[in-house]
Order: sequence, then C-alpha cells, then structure tokens
Amino acid sequence: MKAEIISIGSEILRGQITDTNANFIAKKLVELGIDLEHISGVSDNPESLLSTLKLALKRSDLIITTGGLGPTEDDVTYQTIARALNLKLIKYAEAEESLKIFFKKINKRISPSNLKQTYLPEGANIIINQYGTAPAMILEKENKMICSFPGVPHEMKNLIEENLIPYLKEKYPPSMIKKSKTLKITGLGEASVNDLIRDYINKQTHYSFGIYAHPEDIQVQVTTQAPTEKEVEKLLQFSINQLTKLLGHYIYGSDEETIEEVVGNLLKTKKLKVAVAESCTGGMLGETITRISGSSEYFQGGVVSYQAKIKEELLKVPPEVIKKHGEVSKQVAKLMAEGVRRCCHSDIGISITGIAGPGGATGKKEVGLVYMALADAKKTIAQKHQLFGNRQLVRIRACRRLLNMLRLYLMGK
Amino acid sequence: MKAEIISIGSEILRGQITDTNANFIAKKLVELGIDLEHISGVSDNPESLLSTLKLALKRSDLIITTGGLGPTEDDVTYQTIARALNLKLIKYAEAEESLKIFFKKINKRISPSNLKQTYLPEGANIIINQYGTAPAMILEKENKMICSFPGVPHEMKNLIEENLIPYLKEKYPPSMIKKSKTLKITGLGEASVNDLIRDYINKQTHYSFGIYAHPEDIQVQVTTQAPTEKEVEKLLQFSINQLTKLLGHYIYGSDEETIEEVVGNLLKTKKLKVAVAESCTGGMLGETITRISGSSEYFQGGVVSYQAKIKEELLKVPPEVIKKHGEVSKQVAKLMAEGVRRCCHSDIGISITGIAGPGGATGKKEVGLVYMALADAKKTIAQKHQLFGNRQLVRIRACRRLLNMLRLYLMGK
Repeated sequence: MKAEIISIGSEILRGQITDTNANFIAKKLVELGIDLEHISGVSDNPESLLSTLKLALKRSDLIITTGGLGPTEDDVTYQTIARALNLKLIKYAEAEESLKIFFKKINKRISPSNLKQTYLPEGANIIINQYGTAPAMILEKENKMICSFPGVPHEMKNLIEENLIPYLKEKYPPSMIKKSKTLKITGLGEASVNDLIRDYINKQTHYSFGIYAHPEDIQVQVTTQAPTEKEVEKLLQFSINQLTKLLGHYIYGSDEETIEEVVGNLLKTKKLKVAVAESCTGGMLGETITRISGSSEYFQGGVVSYQAKIKEELLKVPPEVIKKHGEVSKQVAKLMAEGVRRCCHSDIGISITGIAGPGGATGKKEVGLVYMALADAKKTIAQKHQLFGNRQLVRIRACRRLLNMLRLYLMGK
Repeated sequence: MKAEIISIGSEILRGQITDTNANFIAKKLVELGIDLEHISGVSDNPESLLSTLKLALKRSDLIITTGGLGPTEDDVTYQTIARALNLKLIKYAEAEESLKIFFKKINKRISPSNLKQTYLPEGANIIINQYGTAPAMILEKENKMICSFPGVPHEMKNLIEENLIPYLKEKYPPSMIKKSKTLKITGLGEASVNDLIRDYINKQTHYSFGIYAHPEDIQVQVTTQAPTEKEVEKLLQFSINQLTKLLGHYIYGSDEETIEEVVGNLLKTKKLKVAVAESCTGGMLGETITRISGSSEYFQGGVVSYQAKIKEELLKVPPEVIKKHGEVSKQVAKLMAEGVRRCCHSDIGISITGIAGPGGATGKKEVGLVYMALADAKKTIAQKHQLFGNRQLVRIRACRRLLNMLRLYLMGK
C-alpha cells in the first residue's frame, strides 16, 4: 500500500507556517509499516487542490489530507474531494448536533458559516471533532481510502491517534514489524563513514540504511522488518554488531543518547569529577554538560576565561606563556586545563581556547583554529583542530570534539 | 510565473525530520512576489523523484529542489534532474577545485565519494558552496528554471540568500513590494500583548498582523505592501511607531536582533564591562553573551559555580550565608554577583542560582525557582522568578530574564 499526505492551506505556501503535520503523520505511518511515497503541500485554490487530489488518487492507495475544513469560504477540502470522486456533498445530522453542543459549551451562538462544516462527501465515515468545529472523515471508494483531518495541529493529532490509527491497524494488521536503530558517530565526516561501511551496506538485502550529516555528528540508521518483535530485534542487533565492528569507537551512542549523557555516565561509573576552562566557547561546554539532570554528581564547575587577565589570575596561567605563545596555543590550553582542575578540585580538568570568528584571525592562526586539553593528576594531553562553519558552529564543534576526547580518555582509548 | 519546491530526502518521508527548508524558501518567494503553487516532499528513490520532477516541469516554471546532493549512493538529485531533462552529467573543474580547498582547510584528504559531487547536469550555472561540500546550481532550459540546493539548512539558506535571490530579483523585478517587520517583546505574555494592541490592530486595513509566542519571547509581525520601496518603508514605519507607543520598553528589538546583541550594544555604548556567575545555567549565560562576535569588548568572563565550594573559594561567598539561606537564595545570588564583579574586574557582575529540575526541589523551594542579581560599584539588586517548563526551558528563560534585567538597568529603567 502506498500512502500520500496532502497538506492544504495557503498559509503553508506563503511561508507563514511550517507544515509540521506531515511529519507527525509520517512517523505514525512508519510505525504502522505503511510506505509513505509523497507529501504534497497545496494552496486553498480549488483547481490546484483538485489536480493534486486526482494525481494522488492515481498514484496512491491511502491519501491523508490536513487542513481546509474551516468555516470560511476559502476552506474547500470536502467540496473538492467530492468533485474528485464524483460524489455529492450531503448534510450529516451528527455533525450539526455536535456543533450545537460545542457552541453551547463555549456559550456562543452557531455562526451561519459553521453550518457549512456539516456537509461531507456522501459515504464518508464521519469523525466527530470534540476539540474544534471541523469534523474529520474516513472515506473508502474503489480500493482507495481518503482521510481528512483539520489543519490545527492538536486537533489533527488527537483525532488521528484516536480514530485513524486504530482503524488502519485493524484493517491492515501489519504483517511485518518494522524497526529502526540509529548509531551516532563523531570524529568522522559523512564521506569517511560512507567509505567505511559502503561495502557492507551494498551487500545487504534485508536492511535499508541511511547516513545523515548533522552539525554535531553523523548518524547511520538501520531499518529492518520481520514477522515478530523478537525476530526483528534479533535481525536489527545483528546488523548493529556488524556496523559496530566497522565503525568502532567512533560510535558514541545510539538513538536518543547524547554525548553529554554518555560522558556523564562514564564519569559516574568511574566516580570522577570534571571541571571546565573555556575561552572562545564562553560557557557552552559547561552548559552542555549540565543539560543532564544530576550532573552535579560529576561536574564541579569552571572558569570562563574570556580575557587573558582571568586566565592569569583565576587559572594561574603565567603571563609570560601567554605573551610567548598567544592565548590561542597548545601551551595555554594545557595550563588552563591544569589550572581549572586545581582551582575547582576536580579529578579531570578540560579546556578550550580558539578563534570562533568571524574576527580574531592573526598571522598563521585562522578562524576555526581551536586547541583543547585534558589534565588529570598524572598528565596533560592536548589536541589541535581546524574547524569550519560559522561562529556558533565552530563553538558547537569544539565542544563536541572535547567531549569526545574526554569520552575516549574515560574509555581508556 | 508558477514556482514549485521539491524537498528531497527519505528522512522527510520517514518522519525523521520536519521539512523546514520549504518554509524558508516560501517566505523568500513571497518577498519576490513569485507565486508558489506546490510543495512536494519525495524520497531518495530515483523513480519517485523522476516522476515528481517530470510533473513539476509540466506544471511549474521555476522549480527549487533541496537535498540529495550529498556524497553517498542515495543522493541522486543531479543524476535524476539530468535524466528528466535529457542532459548529460559532466564534471565541473571549479567544483573539484573548491573541494580541494575545502579539504585542505580542514586538513583531511578528499574521500573518493566526494568526487561524485563534482558532477552536475551540463549547462548548469554552478554555485560553489563555501559552507560545505555540495555545489548548488541554477539551470535554465526551454523557459524552465531548475535550481538545486543542499538540504543542510544553513548551507541552503546562505547559498539561496547570496545567489538565487539576487538572480531572481534581476530577472523578474516585482511589481508590488511587500515587506514585514517583527517586533520582539520580552516580559509580557501573548495574551497581555494581544490586550495592549488589539484595538489598534482591529482598526487597520492596510496592514496584516501576526502575534507569535516563542519559548524566549513574543513576536508581533506587521506586513504591508506598496508599489515602491520608499512607500512600503514609510507605511511600515508608521505602524511600527504606533505599536512602539503601545508596547514601550517591553520591545527589546526587531527582526533578526537578539537580546544578547541589544545588551552588547548598550554595554559598548556605555563602555561598561560585565562578568557572569552561574549556577543552574552551567555556562549558558556566558555562552549566550559570547554568541556575538566582538563580545570581548565588554565581556570579561565568569565563574560557573556549580558546587558550593566554588561559590565559596572563587566568588568568596561566606559558607555561613550558604548554610543559613541555601545555595538557591537571594542572599547568595547577590554575593555571587558581587564576587564575580570583583574577581573578573568588571563594572557589572550578574548572577543566576536556581533549581532547573527535574530533581532538586526542597521544602518550599520548587523546581523553576530562580534568583538573579546585578551588582555595580554602588549597589546590588536582585530578583526572584518562578519559571516553568522543562530543565532546558527553565535555564533558557532564566538567562533571558537576567539579560532583560541587565538591558533595563543599562537603559536606566
């Protein structure tokens, strides 16, 4: 079965709203094992809508529309569906009844325009909308199913959850259970991830794979299906194991896991405390670590040493080192990490100093140059990175790199 | 001229991401006075994409695609556009050249997969992408224009702003000029903003208005149009002045302005320096202030005093005050602001201490309770807020409140 979503409303095409309804419905269809082939956004113009509907009836089996069910002249979804299917619009008594109840509840009189909302294509299974004034419907004709829901997101969501999902589940019990798992990778680019796993991926026939580049990481998603929950879990785990062999410790987590969560769990397990010294990131590193509730168990705090004087006074970086090597240097990064470890009484001190841009480049030091360091009781290690992107991206990427450096350190890699 | 957007990517149809690119492009087309008739979301499947492209070529004059330009096997936009138009794919030397420069900058070798990205349909006006690896293009053939951009939002936005918009403006100068301006408001809720401006809005016929609630602020958008740039600017400014009278200093800025930018400009003008002491926000306040390039002119740095010991040692908050009033108290907030002002040698010290949740509530102190303070050479002022939302929202809102407190202080309000 091929499904299609049609999002109706001139406000989408004028850019006044982002169509988030399609995303909600797409997720639900994945869970039901129904293939979504097309999403169409179309204005309230009846001719555009008619041609979009006719095309959808040709190429798809299940069509879900949202929007265009309101009381005003420009809401023409039901009229146009009736035209596309050669059906009459007829008055539904239960729609009028529920409108009366709704308006009584909010203590207002039914406006004449609302009465328009009681007309639906004949043969429709009407769905009364207790969240608003527009009834929804499920209509089946000649092996096609057209379902219409209001465009207001919370009305649409509730009505789909309560009516369409159970209906589809009963009518098309998924013969196969479909599941996905996402591996999250840091320290490699999209192309390098692809190079590492391409041969494996190309040989697989029971799985589908997607590689997605985000500003913070690369994600590899594996999807598979099987008749039972147990089999699909087993199949999925098998592929995850293969990919883990290929990608090794570049994988920092899976699905909803974040790197700050992974690092936090490692610190908790090892009973270690960390403190941060930040320059160009201005506090982002501490902010990221403290997104985790309970991070006070392993996070001591830190110093935002934006000016050289603060590096000198609070972190005890000798002025002559700054003068000789510059604030953005491996030497200063190391001394910052050692300094913050000391003044915040932590087991590990980590630091970032760099040029986030767009200003600040000097001589050989370009925008995106970042030094980071990690100090424990015995040693201090440092890394140099040349990052790209705008100011905020350079900062985000610097934090990710350092958190990954800390992760590998905690794993003994 | 009829325009159509095609958003390409299986991740959209699987519900993994919401297509926000279409909304950005739709807004730009409105500004150019170009009618957008269709938005199509389609998977990476070459046959689905081919039929979508062929349909678009039949019904639309300007087609803008996003996505499917990556280095991996499943990225097939250029191949499929070439098929739809009966064109060859040819290697563009400038694409290879820019890839070399890009990889040299990040100190990595070009992966073989990336070389795929140097092939575009013949006749394309290539747009070199300095934000990533995928080149974009504008291709004109037989009165149709097909433009392709990467799916990564920030790459797409920059490349469209810098290349497509000027190109379309020159080729199709608009007859009516439409403009919007957005006022940004903090310290009032959506309903209060509505109450203050409703009477004014209802009387207007030449303008359209929108009130939008965001997690960080309330925004009021005014839109109007006129035949010339000068007239539309004048009309728009007239309404902005009226709204400014009604909303006063609740307005902190307009359009793309951020509160950290407004505060930064005030600090620069007054030649004052600020330092931050943060507890529950973990560094977010410093991170927000340093989003502005050049913030080193007025930002000294700060202390993330997540643990009591750091409040005591670095900020010199007496242990007995913490013991008596608790870490989350007005007294501690004040001493933190004073302490950071002193140790960071700034004119103004600002501080936040609170319970971001979900854990940490004790006795009368609930999740969302935040104390903030501002200290200058003469006095220290403090505020108490009971904020709502999840952990991250409480932290974001706490930072906004404190930045607004600083803004009003700098304005002498």
